[in-house]
Amino acid sequence: MITFEEAYRRIMLNTKDFGDEAVDLMKSTNRILAESIYADRDFPPFDRATKDGIAIKYESFEKGIPYFNVEGVVSAGMPQQKLIGEENCLEIMTGAVLPHNTDTIVMYEDIEIVDGFASIKSNPRKGQNIHKKGEDKKQGEVLLEKGIRISPADIGVFATVGKVEVLVKKLPKVCVISTGNELVDISETPLAHQIRTSNVLSLQTALASENIHADHIHLLDDKKSITQKLTVALREYDVLLLSGGVSKGKYDFIPEVLDDLGVDKVFHKVLQRPGKPMWFGRHESLKTAVFSFPGNPVSTFANYHIYFLPWLYNSLGVDNESEFVILDEDLPNTTPLTLFIPVKTFWDKGTLMARKIENSGSGDLTCLAYSDGFVCLPPQEIPYYRGLLVPYIPVK
Amino acid sequence: MITFEEAYRRIMLNTKDFGDEAVDLMKSTNRILAESIYADRDFPPFDRATKDGIAIKYESFEKGIPYFNVEGVVSAGMPQQKLIGEENCLEIMTGAVLPHNTDTIVMYEDIEIVDGFASIKSNPRKGQNIHKKGEDKKQGEVLLEKGIRISPADIGVFATVGKVEVLVKKLPKVCVISTGNELVDISETPLAHQIRTSNVLSLQTALASENIHADHIHLLDDKKSITQKLTVALREYDVLLLSGGVSKGKYDFIPEVLDDLGVDKVFHKVLQRPGKPMWFGRHESLKTAVFSFPGNPVSTFANYHIYFLPWLYNSLGVDNESEFVILDEDLPNTTPLTLFIPVKTFWDKGTLMARKIENSGSGDLTCLAYSDGFVCLPPQEIPYYRGLLVPYIPVK
Repeated sequence: MITFEEAYRRIMLNTKDFGDEAVDLMKSTNRILAESIYADRDFPPFDRATKDGIAIKYESFEKGIPYFNVEGVVSAGMPQQKLIGEENCLEIMTGAVLPHNTDTIVMYEDIEIVDGFASIKSNPRKGQNIHKKGEDKKQGEVLLEKGIRISPADIGVFATVGKVEVLVKKLPKVCVISTGNELVDISETPLAHQIRTSNVLSLQTALASENIHADHIHLLDDKKSITQKLTVALREYDVLLLSGGVSKGKYDFIPEVLDDLGVDKVFHKVLQRPGKPMWFGRHESLKTAVFSFPGNPVSTFANYHIYFLPWLYNSLGVDNESEFVILDEDLPNTTPLTLFIPVKTFWDKGTLMARKIENSGSGDLTCLAYSDGFVCLPPQEIPYYRGLLVPYIPVK
Repeated sequence: MITFEEAYRRIMLNTKDFGDEAVDLMKSTNRILAESIYADRDFPPFDRATKDGIAIKYESFEKGIPYFNVEGVVSAGMPQQKLIGEENCLEIMTGAVLPHNTDTIVMYEDIEIVDGFASIKSNPRKGQNIHKKGEDKKQGEVLLEKGIRISPADIGVFATVGKVEVLVKKLPKVCVISTGNELVDISETPLAHQIRTSNVLSLQTALASENIHADHIHLLDDKKSITQKLTVALREYDVLLLSGGVSKGKYDFIPEVLDDLGVDKVFHKVLQRPGKPMWFGRHESLKTAVFSFPGNPVSTFANYHIYFLPWLYNSLGVDNESEFVILDEDLPNTTPLTLFIPVKTFWDKGTLMARKIENSGSGDLTCLAYSDGFVCLPPQEIPYYRGLLVPYIPVK
């Protein structure tokens, strides 16, 4: 059986670039930007008033002019205006273009206007209250680098430069596959020996938060129908995420069928808990990646986060930044396995701390709902002590 | 002018419960659960095999029976079976119901089956490899408390108990309103004195991540049309988010129009930077909440996170957990204002650290795109030193 590190390494050797696609900027949030974004002109594009007040030529103020005749009003959205008399002024609104023959703005709070003449009560600085053309960015400068995850603030940048469509990394086509004759639909009332399907719905909603709208197939424990459905799925999707069906049971035909269909096994079983009977393979020619997770909810969800998400992010060209938390209690690992322990995290003076969620085993229904992620504890002789910094895999 | 703390307090006095609504479980991710979820039966619902192997009566093993005649195979999804001969066994698969007359499961790794007879090579424990009925949860127990934010793991819990629809907190109807004659649509090429609209698109995408699909209205600097459009908007929406239009300019009719239309001003201007000209009011009878943000991108986005999101979460009954970061540099505040400084955060040994993003002023185009949030620095005589824990408002 291979170690967790080896399993992780092998999966990362099987990432794939799915290419790029153009999407409407309003649908690009949380996608990975596949082009750099440049300034299409200077920003601000003109000398821009940052206060409401009057625009003057500073030289006139220096000369000691007491009253400035107000020639008119300039507001945002007006083409550039011109001050006719150099010793006059123009009223100006925030966002407006600085008029020709002016170089300084004095805000309303510092002036008094009586009968069309403005007097200045303060001591203005030459050039004040003007956001200079190109001060933020020059035309042609890079505004956003390719490879970032797009946030609402980035949408504002796209809009500013008129990127109605942006190029983003294409996402894989994913199918989640449930297995087992004991599963019934959530709308049904299960008989005593049946349970409702749940893992695939958790996976589908988790995938939705990655902008992946995954289809769902259910496989009954029947070799012929499994073969038929997997044949089609391997062609139609880039990734299959199976839940259950890879243990040692008599009716677990899946590894055998996958082998028959040309999927090369990369590994089966990992020295880890939960999630030991993890199976990963890749179709030799179609390159479909097949993640087969153990069937219980905690194992499925853990391995989705431990293996699938890093595989996805690497495939999209995003760095997987490792995260860490401080243990708030001693957590020994006396096994030869890498333990992934569900924890609840909390902040203590700027530090992220983690406490174990008590659960009765890998089947516990609500353990995942109450946890924020898993701490990763590789086997080691010395126990993991309170206060130790350990790797952390967030799940929400 | 009021302080930030006072502005925040006044906004929190104006929250509103928008009621509950039932939604399809697959559309409930990230919504606030408005009902508690109970176990509809015991979990597991039956004594469940956790390994593939044989089910025996432990007493027979104790008696020293060397070979167990295999009566048949029991798999997941089959109704409960019965072991006929007490000294025989049944092959059993993970997920299957423990058969009558059996109490212990010995996994395949620990047995050998030859010619229909199984011999046990290990020393089994009575009751091993069985997940007992009701061990995780008893029928009627609370699985999820109302008031939580729904995660993919919770979707799995809903599915398990057959909650096809769940009751969630209803979200307010929101309209984002841009103002100003200088703005043109993102698909247009702006003239020298014009700029493309961007703030409202950032707001709309930020709201989308709260599951709020906000409409958009643009107001030109014309009192009559502003009055008409705001009259309708105040009736149709629970919340108006305005960007721009509340400074001192000649064409900033909005505060006046809102007053005419029956919106009570709760405050205008706050001792803070950026975002000082913030205006907040509430319609006296319709109770529409009106957040009017200053027009530049950083101010709008900051005040959306500083005021609107806490107002929204409080309205939905969610606790606003304060967040904190450690400063990675000295940041003095020599002003009488509360400063909200855009920062980039990074982890250092489990601790979240923050460094200021250099920006040229509140209009900088890309400053938001490169920051993760704002640190909040109230006025104080002593500078904020490196290593200090300060309040933090994340924006992504």
